[in-house]
Amino acid sequence: MLKRIEMFKENGFKDNALSNFLVHDSPYMKVINFNLKAGQELPVHSHDIEGQLCLSVMEGRGEFLAKEGKTLPAETGDVLVSDIAEPHGVRAQTDMRILVTIAPPI
Amino acid sequence: MLKRIEMFKENGFKDNALSNFLVHDSPYMKVINFNLKAGQELPVHSHDIEGQLCLSVMEGRGEFLAKEGKTLPAETGDVLVSDIAEPHGVRAQTDMRILVTIAPPI
Repeated sequence: MLKRIEMFKENGFKDNALSNFLVHDSPYMKVINFNLKAGQELPVHSHDIEGQLCLSVMEGRGEFLAKEGKTLPAETGDVLVSDIAEPHGVRAQTDMRILVTIAPPI
Repeated sequence: MLKRIEMFKENGFKDNALSNFLVHDSPYMKVINFNLKAGQELPVHSHDIEGQLCLSVMEGRGEFLAKEGKTLPAETGDVLVSDIAEPHGVRAQTDMRILVTIAPPI
């Protein structure tokens, strides 16, 4: 299995909410692209299960969100690695494209 | 566990070979950033083990490489999903930054 996905063409932006696009789902990993317009957010959340996720900023900038209102800068090229069970999220300051890889898939 | 990695600051480019940077390694996934100058390549390779990888183009453009000399365009924002056992590689036409997530880790 080998496939190419043109993420920037497949997924756009929405005015009222983030736009999500399932890039890949398999027994090994789930890959999702979230596009956020400036001001939109992927709210802080967590799931009480095993596994980790890797969230990379493909375009734009904002803040990574963590527990207790903590934030970290999120610039293009920054990666956030988190346990799935650890609270995490993203808030966009400019239009942002992010790619999330989750393993094992949830 | 939650950590931020400033990939564009942590990893540069080398004149003689691609520059690799281990972003994360755990029982769940391995995440590696490869930076290739124009003309450099991550040669076609495969490992005869279970699992898949997700290769995303963070910056630049080139070609994804597959078996029997086949190529696919690799633009910024493109993602290649491949079985680890399937031959895959990348050739850079401009300076490229790519992010590879492998699950389970090899």
